[in-house]
Amino acid sequence: MAGERVYTASLVIIGNEILSGRTQDLNLAYAAKRLGARGIRVREVRVIPDECDAIVATVNELRPKFDYVFTTGGIGPTHDDITAECIARAFGVGLTLHPEAKRILEQHYRPEQINAARLRMATMPEGAELVRNAVSRVPGFRIDNVYVLAGVPEVMQAMIDGLVPNLAGGVPVRSRTVSCQLAEGVIAEGLEAIQRRYPDLDIGSYPAFRRSGYGVSLVLRGTDEARLAAAAAEVADLVRALGGTPQEEPPEA
Amino acid sequence: MAGERVYTASLVIIGNEILSGRTQDLNLAYAAKRLGARGIRVREVRVIPDECDAIVATVNELRPKFDYVFTTGGIGPTHDDITAECIARAFGVGLTLHPEAKRILEQHYRPEQINAARLRMATMPEGAELVRNAVSRVPGFRIDNVYVLAGVPEVMQAMIDGLVPNLAGGVPVRSRTVSCQLAEGVIAEGLEAIQRRYPDLDIGSYPAFRRSGYGVSLVLRGTDEARLAAAAAEVADLVRALGGTPQEEPPEA
Repeated sequence: MAGERVYTASLVIIGNEILSGRTQDLNLAYAAKRLGARGIRVREVRVIPDECDAIVATVNELRPKFDYVFTTGGIGPTHDDITAECIARAFGVGLTLHPEAKRILEQHYRPEQINAARLRMATMPEGAELVRNAVSRVPGFRIDNVYVLAGVPEVMQAMIDGLVPNLAGGVPVRSRTVSCQLAEGVIAEGLEAIQRRYPDLDIGSYPAFRRSGYGVSLVLRGTDEARLAAAAAEVADLVRALGGTPQEEPPEA
Repeated sequence: MAGERVYTASLVIIGNEILSGRTQDLNLAYAAKRLGARGIRVREVRVIPDECDAIVATVNELRPKFDYVFTTGGIGPTHDDITAECIARAFGVGLTLHPEAKRILEQHYRPEQINAARLRMATMPEGAELVRNAVSRVPGFRIDNVYVLAGVPEVMQAMIDGLVPNLAGGVPVRSRTVSCQLAEGVIAEGLEAIQRRYPDLDIGSYPAFRRSGYGVSLVLRGTDEARLAAAAAEVADLVRALGGTPQEEPPEA
């Protein structure tokens, strides 16, 4: 796989309701899985408030560093929906009524229902391209490598599902998971030795302390199926050699 | 409330398993709520990979900007648990076997069970102070304004619960929620007018498109109960004036 182009992404979650803990974010996990399956790795996520300065600074810091930047939140019709104007400011372009977005509104609302607030939803940075979705009326948009998506999970998911097949991506990262009930301190030395023999893979150890009992998931991640299978077999052997019972979860995309 | 000191925090979630989407983060919402109730506002969250350069750069960027920085993840005994050494590097201090942390291990393991991997869990930046927890053996630690906590939610929650009462905080942010089934585009103008009359409050509009139907939560946040109650009453009046049925959720801390 030497020389394979690795595609990277960052996600900017815009929203006071996430930062306050009132709303549990669900967009990170969904987007990361869909993008990962397309060979696009989410390398950094930021959660920031509904404030223009924060949005402008964050987007301008991230867009040269990653192939893709996705934002979620703040594209509705209310006063706290400021993402479009902040993205325009980040790019140093004006805001304009997007004719296609306006047409979408006109298909769904009677003329007297199209008020200033709803027209905000069709107001986008100059040069933006629409990102459509089938769940709500409000389109997101793309400008350069920045994709501006809804915050509502149902709408964001529809947008990501529509986008992903059309994005350039690399080799998908696949994973194998071997679970057992051995203490991490017992497995650690052998697991590190396997990680050293497979520097092309990323091996992580994730314990859980639940009412149902203690367990640890040993997760192997990489792009080469044969290497993953070989390393997973070594991890299972290690667990057995230490007196544990390895349980292999089915391979995951 | 003029002149009230506002306490701020940022959260750094360290973990490839969160970035890949395999694991749903639960720590942000928990920490944000507990800290918010203590008058400490989470203003930014970063999710970064298990990589020392990223950890050092992120922590050093955030710690002068916020009263508190909390990290989660990477403090166990396995090779991917690198947070302690990276925090030491961020502060330019050495790593040392913390005598109290070592004593905790010695209370829980027989001498022959204390191996190099487990001693890693007691190896901390010079000058660190322990952050204990009752769920697992592994303590976190504090150095200056950076609190290094576990990633496993059960352990992280125990650590936060133990810490929060001892942290300096300001006036807690309280919230009121008025829900209804009016379209956001119908409410937007009136809601913005209320926001303008209450610049000391933060009013957000959060729609949901679920199988059970459409709804929108209008959330008011602030530190002054009387102002919150007055603004929530205006929002409810607005909803009624537009033909909707406001439902007020009980006030939340």
